[in-house]
Amino acid sequence: MADLKLPTRAEDFSEWYNQLVLRAELADYAPVRGCMIVRPYGWTLWENIQQALDRRFKATGHVNAAFPLFIPKSFIEKEKSHVAGFSPELAVVTIGGGEELTEPLVVRPTSETIIGHAYAKWIQSYRDLPVLINCWNSVVRWELRTKLFLRTLEFFWHEGHTAHATAEEAEAETRQMLDIYADFAVNDAAIPVIPGRKSEAERFAGAEITYSIEAMMGDGKALQSGTSHNLGQNFAKAFEIRYLDQKGELQHCWTTSWGLSTRFIGAIIMVHGDDQGLILPPKLAPYQIVIVPIWKSDEEKSAVMSAVKEIRAQLAAAGFRVKTDEREGMSPGFKFNDWEMRGVPLRIEVGPKDVAKGTVVLARRDKPGREGKAFVGRDNLCNAAGKLLDEIHIALYERALAFRKANTAETSEYADFKVAVEKGFALSHWCGSAECEEKIKDETKATMRCIPLDQAGGEGQCVYCRRPAREKAIFAKAY
Amino acid sequence: MADLKLPTRAEDFSEWYNQLVLRAELADYAPVRGCMIVRPYGWTLWENIQQALDRRFKATGHVNAAFPLFIPKSFIEKEKSHVAGFSPELAVVTIGGGEELTEPLVVRPTSETIIGHAYAKWIQSYRDLPVLINCWNSVVRWELRTKLFLRTLEFFWHEGHTAHATAEEAEAETRQMLDIYADFAVNDAAIPVIPGRKSEAERFAGAEITYSIEAMMGDGKALQSGTSHNLGQNFAKAFEIRYLDQKGELQHCWTTSWGLSTRFIGAIIMVHGDDQGLILPPKLAPYQIVIVPIWKSDEEKSAVMSAVKEIRAQLAAAGFRVKTDEREGMSPGFKFNDWEMRGVPLRIEVGPKDVAKGTVVLARRDKPGREGKAFVGRDNLCNAAGKLLDEIHIALYERALAFRKANTAETSEYADFKVAVEKGFALSHWCGSAECEEKIKDETKATMRCIPLDQAGGEGQCVYCRRPAREKAIFAKAY
Repeated sequence: MADLKLPTRAEDFSEWYNQLVLRAELADYAPVRGCMIVRPYGWTLWENIQQALDRRFKATGHVNAAFPLFIPKSFIEKEKSHVAGFSPELAVVTIGGGEELTEPLVVRPTSETIIGHAYAKWIQSYRDLPVLINCWNSVVRWELRTKLFLRTLEFFWHEGHTAHATAEEAEAETRQMLDIYADFAVNDAAIPVIPGRKSEAERFAGAEITYSIEAMMGDGKALQSGTSHNLGQNFAKAFEIRYLDQKGELQHCWTTSWGLSTRFIGAIIMVHGDDQGLILPPKLAPYQIVIVPIWKSDEEKSAVMSAVKEIRAQLAAAGFRVKTDEREGMSPGFKFNDWEMRGVPLRIEVGPKDVAKGTVVLARRDKPGREGKAFVGRDNLCNAAGKLLDEIHIALYERALAFRKANTAETSEYADFKVAVEKGFALSHWCGSAECEEKIKDETKATMRCIPLDQAGGEGQCVYCRRPAREKAIFAKAY
Repeated sequence: MADLKLPTRAEDFSEWYNQLVLRAELADYAPVRGCMIVRPYGWTLWENIQQALDRRFKATGHVNAAFPLFIPKSFIEKEKSHVAGFSPELAVVTIGGGEELTEPLVVRPTSETIIGHAYAKWIQSYRDLPVLINCWNSVVRWELRTKLFLRTLEFFWHEGHTAHATAEEAEAETRQMLDIYADFAVNDAAIPVIPGRKSEAERFAGAEITYSIEAMMGDGKALQSGTSHNLGQNFAKAFEIRYLDQKGELQHCWTTSWGLSTRFIGAIIMVHGDDQGLILPPKLAPYQIVIVPIWKSDEEKSAVMSAVKEIRAQLAAAGFRVKTDEREGMSPGFKFNDWEMRGVPLRIEVGPKDVAKGTVVLARRDKPGREGKAFVGRDNLCNAAGKLLDEIHIALYERALAFRKANTAETSEYADFKVAVEKGFALSHWCGSAECEEKIKDETKATMRCIPLDQAGGEGQCVYCRRPAREKAIFAKAY
């Protein structure tokens, strides 16, 4: 398999992506239409993402819990925008234990409703607030066009659900979680993101405000990479989530929800990958370092393998995630290509000469050829590896940021705007009307990704209707 | 709520259990019949169980992955004992995206079939073996009588699925995982277990051999606490999981599966709990230590709270999971009872006199009154707390083991056997026939729990039919 060449990104970005996901054994198609199997290499990447986020959630006072997979159909219908948004996408259980159910059960597409029902029972007084709960689970949305990681019937995610006493606290929570996503994207995934507010059309079904982080993929398209919703009192009113305040008066709570899914793995692939395959950010990579032993004779093998064993132990003890490629019957060159395709950030080559000199060769995944190679003494290996992994993280981030800048145009004329969204992002004044947004979408296929929180530009004219516009927005074609 | 007394275990063990699960906020009933919400306190306990097991799985070369929630109905029907065992319990999705599905989808009751399908695709050669994959997920079985944690429509678990080149390797894997469960039960949960083999009647649908660990609950009943199945070539044949061996011949693989679920939380509750509530084993408890500050005047409060802050930081830095109870308007006595009910193994009391003397009071959950109290200088606190938690672990284990011994009778006469299974376990020779097993079950409600691996006794006569019997088995009423 591994000798088959991937299509280049320039030839066919979509097919490059599809083949890479399969070849790198990140995921596979399931025998159920639109579902995916996340294979061990992909799932370990997801586990590292989970840990990086979970650490941040717990540090900000959140706790995990689990709510049922099944939701009574009537629950989904209690919040009117929610039902409109989700009912076309539901998977419905109608038979249980061999009998037709009196009320069909929906397989959760998201859990605001069933969690709202529980919060109504658990929350009595201001003393019970805030409630700060997160869940790691999977949800099902009946998508028609699917693509591994990016859009699947079942996908894996976390969903946070909080309840607060005041509107201000709910808004602060919503923004805090957006900040956490941005911090995670930049500092763990090396992905530059634009945090911003969604338009009404792109908002979560049932939210007052939806914030998102948006990233530019390697083909210039946008990917919404995490969302945080201020739900106002919409779900609190639909589910009677109320508390007695300090004056003894009954008040509705203010709730939020926020999520980030296995889509994010798609972002990692499409932001960092190149024509050789994946390039995984060092903080999240299942293996940060792969060791490839090089030998010809049995005598060489024995000396090399004994050095490799020591090197591996040394690196593992220092906390690196390290893999030795001991496969027989494959050339070192084949193994180099294979691990490059799988995106391991750092490769260590150990041959008989290295053993004799007490050195190793370190090769960076992100810099091909001589330029990316370093020759390091074994006594300095952990230190050098740590430094290189940090440098790779920064280099990946900077490359992605430079690419985004090069493919983002601040446009005030619609003619320029149309050119810009063919290539990447357009940052333009927008009057805020759903009508202009809709027309832009119809004419260019670009959607309003977000109104960036960072609004340096001041006022101007809407790029479409020329009416006064207070804010600039990002428009792009999107996944 | 917390001033309501629990029923005692002697009065009504079942109701003691139900109320305790709700009162300690481990879990709650969901609005869908038979489903449960695992609340943060219960889920944190489950996370600690997950970590304790996952560490062991990874140390023995296993990796995690995720397979789809939905399984085509035809898959379940491919293995004949499997379909017989599971088809009465299925939840079936018949509608997706508003349309009737051409093939109904089963919500996974267990994943042997869909994983078997994937393995058939992934495994080509002996070089691909063994495949050692585990999944953390939830499954659905349409149970009629449900009880929180013990038997719910949806429950949380892990399921390991491995494929091997030989029968010997598959058997070794099955036994290895059983050993891991037993090691976890004893060393993390402080629960003595009996590892053994199931009878044909109690075997997993589709297995050649099922092993389990069986534990005695506080009412003398048995709880199957983890199972490991040698599936032989049954699933490999049903799903065509084959490999080319070193001679180039096509062979069927040998597969295993093994699982441990949120039932285990039920075991922790029922083995260790007492009339005051939960007693959580220190290695798994969400909070190992709770600090209760004691003060009357504002002046005392300020001195006490500043000491409590330091003590908490000191314990947290040493790696203890510690909680300070800062709730206002509740007496220390109320807090003591509340945390006793929630089963925190160690309580630290800090009052003005303790602050003045630089000491704290440590109170063990498992030993009431004076006997369980220690007065410790703050400079020695971490050391003392660590020692006490270790002692509590051992004491819980020994108490449970003594209880099991006191309620297990080695019986050779059926009359004695019938008395024994009213109280606890009967260990008796059994001829191995399904007929005797069935009659015993009909007459006494006791089922064959397992044939212990440890068979010290030699041969004898079947307790029921008096025919020769090579092995002894454990019989008991069971959850």
